[in-house]
Amino acid sequence: MQTADGAATPSSAAIAEVRLTPILIADPPLLNTQGVHQPYTPRLIIEVVTADGTTGVGETYGDSRYLDLAAPLAKALPGHRISDLNGLFTLAERVCGEPGDVSDSVDLGGLRGVQTADKLRLSVISGFEVACLDALGKTLGLPVHALLGGKVRDAVDYSAYLFYRLAEHPQGAGEPDDWGAALDPAGVVAQARRFADIYGFGSFKLKGGVFPPEQEIAAVRALAEAFPGKPLRLDPNGAWSVATSLEVARELADVLEYLEDPASSTDRMAEVAAGTDVPLATNMCVTTVPEIREAFTRGAVQVVLSDHHYWGGLRRTQQLAAICGAFGVGLSMHSNTHLGISLAAMTHVAATVPNLDYACDTHYPWQTEDVITERHVFEDGRLAVCDRPGLGVTLDPAALAALHQRWLDDDGTLRDRDDAAAMRKADPSWRTPSVPRW
Amino acid sequence: MQTADGAATPSSAAIAEVRLTPILIADPPLLNTQGVHQPYTPRLIIEVVTADGTTGVGETYGDSRYLDLAAPLAKALPGHRISDLNGLFTLAERVCGEPGDVSDSVDLGGLRGVQTADKLRLSVISGFEVACLDALGKTLGLPVHALLGGKVRDAVDYSAYLFYRLAEHPQGAGEPDDWGAALDPAGVVAQARRFADIYGFGSFKLKGGVFPPEQEIAAVRALAEAFPGKPLRLDPNGAWSVATSLEVARELADVLEYLEDPASSTDRMAEVAAGTDVPLATNMCVTTVPEIREAFTRGAVQVVLSDHHYWGGLRRTQQLAAICGAFGVGLSMHSNTHLGISLAAMTHVAATVPNLDYACDTHYPWQTEDVITERHVFEDGRLAVCDRPGLGVTLDPAALAALHQRWLDDDGTLRDRDDAAAMRKADPSWRTPSVPRW
Repeated sequence: MQTADGAATPSSAAIAEVRLTPILIADPPLLNTQGVHQPYTPRLIIEVVTADGTTGVGETYGDSRYLDLAAPLAKALPGHRISDLNGLFTLAERVCGEPGDVSDSVDLGGLRGVQTADKLRLSVISGFEVACLDALGKTLGLPVHALLGGKVRDAVDYSAYLFYRLAEHPQGAGEPDDWGAALDPAGVVAQARRFADIYGFGSFKLKGGVFPPEQEIAAVRALAEAFPGKPLRLDPNGAWSVATSLEVARELADVLEYLEDPASSTDRMAEVAAGTDVPLATNMCVTTVPEIREAFTRGAVQVVLSDHHYWGGLRRTQQLAAICGAFGVGLSMHSNTHLGISLAAMTHVAATVPNLDYACDTHYPWQTEDVITERHVFEDGRLAVCDRPGLGVTLDPAALAALHQRWLDDDGTLRDRDDAAAMRKADPSWRTPSVPRW
Repeated sequence: MQTADGAATPSSAAIAEVRLTPILIADPPLLNTQGVHQPYTPRLIIEVVTADGTTGVGETYGDSRYLDLAAPLAKALPGHRISDLNGLFTLAERVCGEPGDVSDSVDLGGLRGVQTADKLRLSVISGFEVACLDALGKTLGLPVHALLGGKVRDAVDYSAYLFYRLAEHPQGAGEPDDWGAALDPAGVVAQARRFADIYGFGSFKLKGGVFPPEQEIAAVRALAEAFPGKPLRLDPNGAWSVATSLEVARELADVLEYLEDPASSTDRMAEVAAGTDVPLATNMCVTTVPEIREAFTRGAVQVVLSDHHYWGGLRRTQQLAAICGAFGVGLSMHSNTHLGISLAAMTHVAATVPNLDYACDTHYPWQTEDVITERHVFEDGRLAVCDRPGLGVTLDPAALAALHQRWLDDDGTLRDRDDAAAMRKADPSWRTPSVPRW
């Protein structure tokens, strides 16, 4: 279809079909303060197909509370233009009801910050937004970064994401790997070396909150000795008291790039921030717009770890970056277990944000399975920004079908991530620790 | 050119040529606290032409300090992709030197807020950004609002912009009109009635700071009587002391939608805000990102009047909206004397911003000349959001040439807006008043 002046109109770029495919992906036995990753974790793959047959792909959380919101949105989308990204929010507000268990903020609520109906809806919208951007880019012949105003860098830095981990899942479940256990400083350093050797990462984040703080301090000290001068981060997911947080900050002040969520809640983070010069980062106390004002005004956080899933997509991530910039707050990028579609999306948006001041987190090296035909390859700890139309990834239908089959075959126990339940397989007495844990 | 999957590539959308055309446009003898509008005021029209012959148009301030920054940017642009909007900022930082008279913040500095090198550069970039968006939209077959994420409304509300004014310019200069003088409450109401009759505006802003506050209070009271229940605004451009501001706020609390820049500086605005419930709006104390933090933290302003020229374009305006949203600050839109290209740009971006809570300002009804073939038409005080590719306006080469010829013919006295100099034509003793004036 042509307009009077010869340009193609976007009218053919209306959505004709939406496919939602919940999957279960292999996940190693990584430890955190709430328990251990389950052998398989849920993700949702979203495909939007336009009237002219272009398919765009997106990815987001796959727990059932997200699926419950995604289904009515998918149903309402046919006819919606892929360029109407703002309209996704209006539509979702209209058609997505309140998620069923929004008040249940115990398990994953803890690691992912507050669980509000708004935030869950935004997490779902983000998957559709990315899918629409992918389709739009393919339709227009533009990479997603160009749809976001254009890349300001040709590669995006990522950080090694180190975990205390078990050698294998409790009861030998899941997919085996050869990483072995990492339960002490030597294990953490060995893991870091392997990450550095394979991927070239030049900065390291340790997921903490697993062992008493003195052990985690020792692990970070060991990393500092093994990788002198490299930026280090420690993230106990809010497990510490204010006093413990200040003690750790004091012990590690000379080697930490930032301390991530040492204590939970804006109140505690503000208290910690007032007592240390180590920057505090967060993906727990500021994960929604309504939390920004108080946290920024009180100086509770110095770095926000953006997550395009939480924040409602790539354009909202850019807005968050602008807000941080205006308030002198740094920006880094959070990761939850994810596949190559989300990594592509993260890389595109990161490429467009001038004030993305730190290497981004990613779980990707821990994920051995994917739904795209060619896995991303880190070189020198970086991913090149792809200039192909859309996200630049291609969905692998066979891989998607196999992972979906695993989801279908599951009896329901793994369809909602529950790190405490996974831990109980090893230790039946395990309960989600209350915070502060130390 | 086609990619492997058949989509058009954007490689033909590189800029081949940039045309800068400074013009002088007729402007009525509108009064403000610094003086009176000159008979003609400068604007800069920017055309970017892509390699495949698509032309995009933009408009910004045309004073010589802006032209001095626009020239090197225009020279550096060939080869730049029209989709690389973020790259405009990087490029401008590299090629635009510091503007010559940036420290001269006396005349227009007062009405347009601080004059920093950054802000002047952003004002120039905005014209290029709009031109690139127009070209990109035409190339892709998408309206500019779709390139900004999509409209969330089909029409944008504008407010009547009332001015105290002279019947004609001093010494009979400029283009005559039949509006007559408006120097008292009756004149202001008559002007408002004519605006309402022609354009259907349902809200009214009076530019104040011209007469002693009690006269302006009387004018707003007269408007409230003539248009009961309609939102009213008063803007003395920072001419008042804190005490006077509070007195006016008290007198007009029952009829004002907001009070705009009653006092100059964040300090004074914060003092005023602390003493009244009337929301304070600004396009003077918050006009750049570095001014946001203090003003928002101190509660100095309740409404920011965005101006895509100041703020660096349409995407930065969206970011400003996000910042305002996060801090519970309202958003409205500022206008300086402008033509139809900028009005189109304002309408596109306003259509995409969910939290644009107030009718936008526009000087457009005062501008009898334009550089586009079809003038915008307000209906019921609103402009329909255009869905044609790009901005949806067409440049009129003959009109542009004629207004440029006027600029060429000028001896230099009108090429830089100077309301105080214009006032001295009537009153040789006139000097820019110091603030607070009352």
